[in-house]
Amino acid sequence: MNAFNDLADFSTEEIASLIRLATHLDSNPEPEALRGKVLALLFLSPSLRTLASFQAAMTRLGGGAFVISPDMSIHGIETRPGIVMDGAAAEHIREAVPVIASYGDAIGIRAFAERKNLASDIAETEFNALTDLIDTPYINMESALNHPCQSLADWKTMDDLKIPQHGGKFVLSWAYHPKALPLAVPAATVQMAAMRGMEVTVLRPDGFALPDAVMDKAKDAAASSGGSVVETDERTEAMEGAHVIYAKSWSSTRHYGDRVIDEKARSELRHWCVDDPWFDNAQDDCRFMHCLPVRRGVVVSDRVLDGPRSVVIHEARNRMLAQMAVLHQMLGGRS
Amino acid sequence: MNAFNDLADFSTEEIASLIRLATHLDSNPEPEALRGKVLALLFLSPSLRTLASFQAAMTRLGGGAFVISPDMSIHGIETRPGIVMDGAAAEHIREAVPVIASYGDAIGIRAFAERKNLASDIAETEFNALTDLIDTPYINMESALNHPCQSLADWKTMDDLKIPQHGGKFVLSWAYHPKALPLAVPAATVQMAAMRGMEVTVLRPDGFALPDAVMDKAKDAAASSGGSVVETDERTEAMEGAHVIYAKSWSSTRHYGDRVIDEKARSELRHWCVDDPWFDNAQDDCRFMHCLPVRRGVVVSDRVLDGPRSVVIHEARNRMLAQMAVLHQMLGGRS
Amino acid sequence: MNAFNDLADFSTEEIASLIRLATHLDSNPEPEALRGKVLALLFLSPSLRTLASFQAAMTRLGGGAFVISPDMSIHGIETRPGIVMDGAAAEHIREAVPVIASYGDAIGIRAFAERKNLASDIAETEFNALTDLIDTPYINMESALNHPCQSLADWKTMDDLKIPQHGGKFVLSWAYHPKALPLAVPAATVQMAAMRGMEVTVLRPDGFALPDAVMDKAKDAAASSGGSVVETDERTEAMEGAHVIYAKSWSSTRHYGDRVIDEKARSELRHWCVDDPWFDNAQDDCRFMHCLPVRRGVVVSDRVLDGPRSVVIHEARNRMLAQMAVLHQMLGGRS
Repeated sequence: MNAFNDLADFSTEEIASLIRLATHLDSNPEPEALRGKVLALLFLSPSLRTLASFQAAMTRLGGGAFVISPDMSIHGIETRPGIVMDGAAAEHIREAVPVIASYGDAIGIRAFAERKNLASDIAETEFNALTDLIDTPYINMESALNHPCQSLADWKTMDDLKIPQHGGKFVLSWAYHPKALPLAVPAATVQMAAMRGMEVTVLRPDGFALPDAVMDKAKDAAASSGGSVVETDERTEAMEGAHVIYAKSWSSTRHYGDRVIDEKARSELRHWCVDDPWFDNAQDDCRFMHCLPVRRGVVVSDRVLDGPRSVVIHEARNRMLAQMAVLHQMLGGRS
Repeated sequence: MNAFNDLADFSTEEIASLIRLATHLDSNPEPEALRGKVLALLFLSPSLRTLASFQAAMTRLGGGAFVISPDMSIHGIETRPGIVMDGAAAEHIREAVPVIASYGDAIGIRAFAERKNLASDIAETEFNALTDLIDTPYINMESALNHPCQSLADWKTMDDLKIPQHGGKFVLSWAYHPKALPLAVPAATVQMAAMRGMEVTVLRPDGFALPDAVMDKAKDAAASSGGSVVETDERTEAMEGAHVIYAKSWSSTRHYGDRVIDEKARSELRHWCVDDPWFDNAQDDCRFMHCLPVRRGVVVSDRVLDGPRSVVIHEARNRMLAQMAVLHQMLGGRS
Repeated sequence: MNAFNDLADFSTEEIASLIRLATHLDSNPEPEALRGKVLALLFLSPSLRTLASFQAAMTRLGGGAFVISPDMSIHGIETRPGIVMDGAAAEHIREAVPVIASYGDAIGIRAFAERKNLASDIAETEFNALTDLIDTPYINMESALNHPCQSLADWKTMDDLKIPQHGGKFVLSWAYHPKALPLAVPAATVQMAAMRGMEVTVLRPDGFALPDAVMDKAKDAAASSGGSVVETDERTEAMEGAHVIYAKSWSSTRHYGDRVIDEKARSELRHWCVDDPWFDNAQDDCRFMHCLPVRRGVVVSDRVLDGPRSVVIHEARNRMLAQMAVLHQMLGGRS
């Protein structure tokens, strides 16, 4: 495996194999698998789960990781091509990325969307500009429109909980948040649930539809897997018989990159906070999923998040296990 | 061992066993003991010795650690229960702590006292609220009123230096400092010296007596160990025949949490700076101990700190060794 | 090896041996060599390559490292001797350095020049004050006038590329930079090239001559190695037949420490940006070297840096390998 960039690059059998390996490594530690191997971790955006889970994953497999983030250690980093660097930035990404990659057997990169131009973000212009600089195997730790490690962990979580693939109903719901957030998690999540063969409903208010490119890609995946993908702004309809509600806020796509209009539009949507009544017509054991961090009382009520439906900690722990499987395959673990 | 939270939770024989293990590991490295094991380190307060010594300890035992601190990696963290998170903080401690713990075989947590309400700090309200969130074995890396790793290291330091247990005279002395500091180290230290069976004197100015709860607990320990605990504001009396003076500043307990009055009270106590004359009637080889960081010329004079009485570097190195013993027992090292 | 502080402390045969070991470890990993060994890394100045490459080096050899930097973890650190610490700083370097060193089998220290007094910086007053505090083996990760890890990596890079030692022409060229930078890299580089037996030319504008102490030391090395060291401000003459141009900016030595005059002097030297015409009379395959970070369009043009002459990523990767060799020898790797 030379890149773990998009779940869509893998067959469902390959994904199942990764999940089996993740489960196996949970109960059968392999502290010799990656002896002396190094994972470089480059964060151009903040992190908690990803930062912690990748370091823990490498330690559990007998290797190690190092972390570079602008706050910690970079002298101010320039990303624009062709620029005369006589300002604050002392280093260009064109040197920084290949150098950091050269110290690792693999590199994980996180770079959030610029959120200025939707077409550019959908094309992953910025992330691809980084990975084009290197030959080292790499892992997407969240880009403009993807977060494959989160999706692999979420898929495993649903397997663990025996949530049905075919016939399982998966609701990806927009939720209120005071800030305009990236599309990475919703785009990756709808793709994941579609690939898993589920009946996927994207529930979102007017103005917050996922981009056509994202929906079309998910529908293609559903066509292959025997699932389906629809969207609606009707909550009761969406939640009918749902096995899972996956909540996430994201920025307006109609006014993408316009923070003023986006803020105004979302300010009227504070009632999009997942709470007990949302589950009235769902499956009795309908689960609540979220990638974290989550704002309590804003995205979801305390009683849902603290109640038995919530599997958010389970998802978060699966990040580590899913990434152990990816690293094991990518770095040739001696199993 | 499921928790290393308070030296008082252990018998003197258990403590002696930990110290023997620490000494053994110093001369007999066990770089396979914790292969593939992970220690999560969560710092909600700053650190140098603890940060470095726990990472070094895990490496020496063949495992690894990862570090999470608010400055480095958390998107702003909320600690208040039941709050609507529509402000700056993007994550609640109720998710952050279980998630971080889920990546480790054990977790170390540091959270200083709030220093608003003495009863609440004595009850360890904040620290217990964190550990109540997890089932993972945990280590107290300093809480409102405890610092058991420091105390275990200090106990070992006195053993190393053959400072007598029974009949050994231990003076815990308040010292001047420009800021109101937590009670964690003095509370842990008086308990440690009492459990070690020493004749303990707490030397402090009026208004800075340790809380009754702390003193009573130490006196109980002394009753069991054959030691004693008294307090005074008379330096000459306190230092008579002392084997050890352990200096530390702490905030006013009479005006706990009131920084204005505290500052005024301490401003008149600048002469509480340990210097050569303090040792006039002590044992010839009376030692100077301090947990570090220490302010030179404020808490202690340069000549004492740089002289032969000072064992502060010895204490600091013992932090690593003491913690190796704790980790070895907690994580089931194959010795 | 108790210190890796200055390339000049080693014979050319010892350096050749380190480079052979570095090359060997690149193709023959030794993930058991430093099992359970700890490298302490103390950064009093910012870092990217050094921070990453030392951590990666320790992991590849089976050990581990921890990082302490003022931004991350120190409560404000005092360096002045004999001071009453009643201000912001909570810890003195006299405690911090021995404590940090006590957790490692070796310690790497980075402390840039004060750049107030040239004689003091040439004498390495500040760096020596730090290493005088410890008995632990140490590595100079960049001091006022040295950067031996960079120099060892650069030497290896030229060996890798079969750039001739005797008869090889090495140009160390000053370049424009908006800030007054330290002398560490140019001083270490001229010494390295002279020890390697090359014909060394230091090309720099008036007012930016390297200090006599640096030039005299390099000339002594050249006398032993059969090389030569000259300086000039004539670019065409300097570049005649050059095998390598090593670009680096540094502060004015005529007005050392005077930032106002320095800034004025350098503001007229913006044309000192390495570009294609510089190579007109050099060897056809003349290489471009730089220690990084480098400012594009300021120190060097994009077309040179992105072209086939540039070996800057090769140099940066060799940092890791060179340091692995140093650590292997210093910490007694079982090879």
